[in-house]
Amino acid sequence: MTGKGNAEENIIYVGSKPPMSYVLAIVTQFNSGSSEVFIKARGKAISRAVDAAEITRNRFVTDAKLKDIKIGTEAVTNEEGRTSNVSSIEICLEK
Amino acid sequence: MTGKGNAEENIIYVGSKPPMSYVLAIVTQFNSGSSEVFIKARGKAISRAVDAAEITRNRFVTDAKLKDIKIGTEAVTNEEGRTSNVSSIEICLEK
Repeated sequence: MTGKGNAEENIIYVGSKPPMSYVLAIVTQFNSGSSEVFIKARGKAISRAVDAAEITRNRFVTDAKLKDIKIGTEAVTNEEGRTSNVSSIEICLEK
Repeated sequence: MTGKGNAEENIIYVGSKPPMSYVLAIVTQFNSGSSEVFIKARGKAISRAVDAAEITRNRFVTDAKLKDIKIGTEAVTNEEGRTSNVSSIEICLEK
């Protein structure tokens, strides 16, 4: 994640931190010149990803628009080697 | 929710029950002749709504397609009269 103009830099992975951590990451990404930011999450973090996108759009980057929202299913292997399916979301914000 | 052909019948509100309860409701709605089913949720139930849509699509109504996904913010007033914002999702499945 150190390359300049790297396409993967504008992907924010949402996990279990408070939503504002991810809002800050999204805002920073827009301020560094990105015109698109992808917000990705899986499982229970999906609601937090929606929160982060909505807080960003309503309070911090009010000219950002929802470009695209995708949902899907990913196979995840746990420590015991068992595979289970988990839902995922990808929200694309565009400025 | 008793009227025949009522447009609101094809809206499934996802709450805190297990995802399969909502999957069953969605499948029933498709089987009763609806060509579109809307799955709505707020707050933490958003991840469960995505789960329900994905399980339906992958296992039960495999010809159902994701027509549209919307996210938004709703103002909710709690028992103490205070208003807070909560994120929402609306997933439209089409057969």
